[in-house]
Amino acid sequence: MGEIAYTNGITNGVGNDKSHSPPNGYRKSCWYEEEIEENLRWCFALNSILHTGASQYQDIALLDTKPFGKALVLDGKLQSAETDEFIYHECLVHPALLHHPLPKNVFIMGGGEGSTARELLRHKTIDKVVMCDIDEEVVEFCKSYLVVNKEAFHDSRLEVVINDARAELEGKEEKYDVIIGDLADPIEGGPCYKLYTKDFYELSLKPKLKKGGIFVTQAGPAGIFSHTEVFSCIYNTLRQVFKYVVPYSAHIPSYADIWGWVMASDSPLDLSAEELDMRMKLRINEENRYLDGKTFLSSSTLSKAVRNSLNNETHVYTEGAARFIYGHGKNA
Amino acid sequence: MGEIAYTNGITNGVGNDKSHSPPNGYRKSCWYEEEIEENLRWCFALNSILHTGASQYQDIALLDTKPFGKALVLDGKLQSAETDEFIYHECLVHPALLHHPLPKNVFIMGGGEGSTARELLRHKTIDKVVMCDIDEEVVEFCKSYLVVNKEAFHDSRLEVVINDARAELEGKEEKYDVIIGDLADPIEGGPCYKLYTKDFYELSLKPKLKKGGIFVTQAGPAGIFSHTEVFSCIYNTLRQVFKYVVPYSAHIPSYADIWGWVMASDSPLDLSAEELDMRMKLRINEENRYLDGKTFLSSSTLSKAVRNSLNNETHVYTEGAARFIYGHGKNA
Amino acid sequence: MGEIAYTNGITNGVGNDKSHSPPNGYRKSCWYEEEIEENLRWCFALNSILHTGASQYQDIALLDTKPFGKALVLDGKLQSAETDEFIYHECLVHPALLHHPLPKNVFIMGGGEGSTARELLRHKTIDKVVMCDIDEEVVEFCKSYLVVNKEAFHDSRLEVVINDARAELEGKEEKYDVIIGDLADPIEGGPCYKLYTKDFYELSLKPKLKKGGIFVTQAGPAGIFSHTEVFSCIYNTLRQVFKYVVPYSAHIPSYADIWGWVMASDSPLDLSAEELDMRMKLRINEENRYLDGKTFLSSSTLSKAVRNSLNNETHVYTEGAARFIYGHGKNA
Amino acid sequence: MGEIAYTNGITNGVGNDKSHSPPNGYRKSCWYEEEIEENLRWCFALNSILHTGASQYQDIALLDTKPFGKALVLDGKLQSAETDEFIYHECLVHPALLHHPLPKNVFIMGGGEGSTARELLRHKTIDKVVMCDIDEEVVEFCKSYLVVNKEAFHDSRLEVVINDARAELEGKEEKYDVIIGDLADPIEGGPCYKLYTKDFYELSLKPKLKKGGIFVTQAGPAGIFSHTEVFSCIYNTLRQVFKYVVPYSAHIPSYADIWGWVMASDSPLDLSAEELDMRMKLRINEENRYLDGKTFLSSSTLSKAVRNSLNNETHVYTEGAARFIYGHGKNA
Repeated sequence: MGEIAYTNGITNGVGNDKSHSPPNGYRKSCWYEEEIEENLRWCFALNSILHTGASQYQDIALLDTKPFGKALVLDGKLQSAETDEFIYHECLVHPALLHHPLPKNVFIMGGGEGSTARELLRHKTIDKVVMCDIDEEVVEFCKSYLVVNKEAFHDSRLEVVINDARAELEGKEEKYDVIIGDLADPIEGGPCYKLYTKDFYELSLKPKLKKGGIFVTQAGPAGIFSHTEVFSCIYNTLRQVFKYVVPYSAHIPSYADIWGWVMASDSPLDLSAEELDMRMKLRINEENRYLDGKTFLSSSTLSKAVRNSLNNETHVYTEGAARFIYGHGKNA
Repeated sequence: MGEIAYTNGITNGVGNDKSHSPPNGYRKSCWYEEEIEENLRWCFALNSILHTGASQYQDIALLDTKPFGKALVLDGKLQSAETDEFIYHECLVHPALLHHPLPKNVFIMGGGEGSTARELLRHKTIDKVVMCDIDEEVVEFCKSYLVVNKEAFHDSRLEVVINDARAELEGKEEKYDVIIGDLADPIEGGPCYKLYTKDFYELSLKPKLKKGGIFVTQAGPAGIFSHTEVFSCIYNTLRQVFKYVVPYSAHIPSYADIWGWVMASDSPLDLSAEELDMRMKLRINEENRYLDGKTFLSSSTLSKAVRNSLNNETHVYTEGAARFIYGHGKNA
Repeated sequence: MGEIAYTNGITNGVGNDKSHSPPNGYRKSCWYEEEIEENLRWCFALNSILHTGASQYQDIALLDTKPFGKALVLDGKLQSAETDEFIYHECLVHPALLHHPLPKNVFIMGGGEGSTARELLRHKTIDKVVMCDIDEEVVEFCKSYLVVNKEAFHDSRLEVVINDARAELEGKEEKYDVIIGDLADPIEGGPCYKLYTKDFYELSLKPKLKKGGIFVTQAGPAGIFSHTEVFSCIYNTLRQVFKYVVPYSAHIPSYADIWGWVMASDSPLDLSAEELDMRMKLRINEENRYLDGKTFLSSSTLSKAVRNSLNNETHVYTEGAARFIYGHGKNA
Repeated sequence: MGEIAYTNGITNGVGNDKSHSPPNGYRKSCWYEEEIEENLRWCFALNSILHTGASQYQDIALLDTKPFGKALVLDGKLQSAETDEFIYHECLVHPALLHHPLPKNVFIMGGGEGSTARELLRHKTIDKVVMCDIDEEVVEFCKSYLVVNKEAFHDSRLEVVINDARAELEGKEEKYDVIIGDLADPIEGGPCYKLYTKDFYELSLKPKLKKGGIFVTQAGPAGIFSHTEVFSCIYNTLRQVFKYVVPYSAHIPSYADIWGWVMASDSPLDLSAEELDMRMKLRINEENRYLDGKTFLSSSTLSKAVRNSLNNETHVYTEGAARFIYGHGKNA
């Protein structure tokens, strides 16, 4: 099988031997290419194209890449990669749940991939998780192909709803300890940007949080330059709606950038690293791979430039004035 | 299949409408990339990576490409593509067989892909084809995956031998009406360059041709610049060994170049276009897609620059002085 | 040369030594990339980006590429490359001029690059060449940067007119022995497609040909697949307007394809290879690098598939029903 | 000038307008491509190739890239980019200088680019900076082309020495308050890996630090996966030689990764964010763009996985057992 390493790049140990460049060009002849920005490309050598499909909302692909393992790609944008999705999902889920005194039920907007539910279900206090994704095909696709989330998808505490998150929240009486925004970036014409507006947060989401409830959302790129695309606006928009708002970020190698999240509540969000570590021990099954108290301290201590520009951000998302990042959704 | 169409860029309605560029980048996110020369790249958008493997001699891959359909890649060099391999194989096989008065048995050096045998077996006069390829894995790989050659592989007139062509020719008494060189390009360290030398042609091959027999070989790139890589030398080497030598060439889109072949014999090779057309009608089942009399006239009338440099070529291939084209074989 | 050798990291002659692949990746770190089709890319290693500019009609760039030398790029499509533009321009100019008994004045539609004029001015019989290009910037750009055409641009027999070719032809009384179409491909929104229609040929162009006059135009890709983009339609459109129409083609390496031209007249166009060679000797200063009698015979003997599909083409270009190739002009 | 934006990518405002994808493919036809790892490519659209050269040690290029401005490339690896080099250089220089009570003289190993000297010279306490780079051509190249460092190169406090850093340190009596390692990554065959060994630190470098002196070095990629390439080993090697060792890291967009530095001393390195901010105000001319007290707190609080693997690292660099990252130096 070692031989295969030489074929258009099927992986094997040799691939990791950094001290030898390939004997000839053909070793890496198949590539996945993503335009991170108009003038910036990020390319992964491919082992294979595992599955492809499409829904009425977006295109779906599961690739096997050399540098980052299996990669889920929606509308040509990498959603998560096997080797480092744990960073994104631990950062999305655990800070909010740990800051909550006793999280029992959680509502996920989006999250069809299943990884967010997987992280939630590691919390012993959780007795109900509602995953509300608008795209049934994506959910089915991930259910079938993302082995790592098989268990979560079959957990009796998980309820999968195929619906628009706003409609679902507004249409039901139920209130939640934590609501999680695991939505696609607010891309023009994409299915999600309406779920990042002040009105939505104020009128649809906040009323569905129990007293002391916490909302957390992924908030797009948070690099020293890229944070102005949506991170600072999401932060500033939530600042209009909640008393306490905590932005934090972490580097995700497969995204070639720092990623951001924003946690918001009307109750204080100010646990020490030690307190967080203690709660993790008590409440979470198995150990985190990425997040611990010190890591969160570091993640929530933004660098000078980002900190300042978040503080100075004045833009607020409204349906009339969304701010967009590069790329178009299918409905553009 | 329709599903696949949407992902990593398979055409849908829009895809064919050349007047619209894709609405977003993801349409063409997976690519096969070949270094035609050190400074020249040729990239095909990919539908999928169908199969990969390797043998002791070379690496094997079958890709599904958007522009050229299924593509067989050996050692990272495109061997043949579904949409245009008929050009290569009709040019390799039919001119020699048609110029022969009554070709009954043919020996193929290499040809493991099976397409050369397929074209040969279309000739009603043929009662035996020996395909002698050194690489059993390639033969098995193509047998399993190249549907288009399934019938040929199961034709009772075809005898597949796994052996070095030289050893096979020297080791057997049998003589042939036509011998066909369907070998990989003479790449340094590649398995084949010894089968392009004057000694081999004179001492091993020619003795196995019956009286009036014809030898034809693929002869590498034949473009206005690229013909000096090997085409002119193969021509000049054969000129040392045979009385009549006819070089000809044709454009093969998936190779991004003109390709060359050389036909050689001690009997005249000078049929008219009309005579060729007549023999095709009489001897070949079904119609050719590429080759007819006029096409061969055009193919064998080389452009001024190539014609002159072939006439002036002095280099002769010997084991001591092979001339190589870009790239390395695994045994380099 | 030394300097160029140093660009994007090459440090020595090894770059030409095909038998060695570069020891590390950086040797070829800068690339020009062209989308030949939506799913097909053609990439040249770059030495440098010499000049860039833009006009109201199109974007202009002069690149120094490793495989093909200096390359003129308009609207992101390679127009001509130093190493092989002679093929395109000899094929465009000489067949028509040689078939004409005594060509004295010639009108070039487009041709701002200057190479077409350069080839025309090699003909001893020529006393006037009108080059009518709509884009003054392109003409000035090429005048300044394309050293190879400096002499031609300063030849007293050359008259450069900045105007729309149609307006110029209609607005003047003068008639010509030969009219040459050296226009950009008929791309939707491009400046040129109106100059490929039956009406234009019949009502504007033909009346400006003297008795026995000849029209020749570049006719886009002419490969076994690509000829259906515009070549067959241009041929069929001219067939409606002229008694004798001769399509021919040649491989141009830097285009990664066969290219086509169509020559048309109401007088017979049927010189033998020998006759062509004789006229070249008598009429053209210096020897052609690409074209001679036999080469033209080969070029004008199309391969079976192309020949048949040209014969069967029914589409005629009219302003209402243009057929387009991939890409967009700026006015799209 | 807007027009030019359409040319092979000369930059203008439009490039930043994320809400519009380019009207056609050609807008980004020239690219710089770097292999970050064997299976990972990072590509910048190019405006132009400004300057290229080579020395006996390495190849040198200055590119004008769209996403990151002017970029200095040595041996095909990006060294620093105009838009974000301040992150690297502020992190390399200021923490060590600020932790020192009164830094007066500093020795830079490498640093030929001039940016490290530039940052040092912003410190009011500095009266002498020795920049010791082995490659005169690089120093001259940067002196001529990196406008941003012109002032620094002409500062009377800067002494540029062309020599091997080890030889220079060993050959002179002078001792320094701070020594800075601004060397190329320890690449196999590269000029620098000997300057990352325990012996060098112990026997050559440490003796040249004054009492209370501080050493800081760039320490390669420090991402959650990439930190094992060299960062953890450099940290562990310094841990063998100094009492107090502080690793820290920051994301550098143009590197597509987190970068690491290690600061080491026999005196404590434990200033609070507030103390750091105060010292910056007092000692540094102009404000930092990247670094302040909180940023350093965050940078020096490594994420769980990196923290643990640094603590558990056992490898120590010795000349016999260097550990290498991908790529080869010219002397490989």
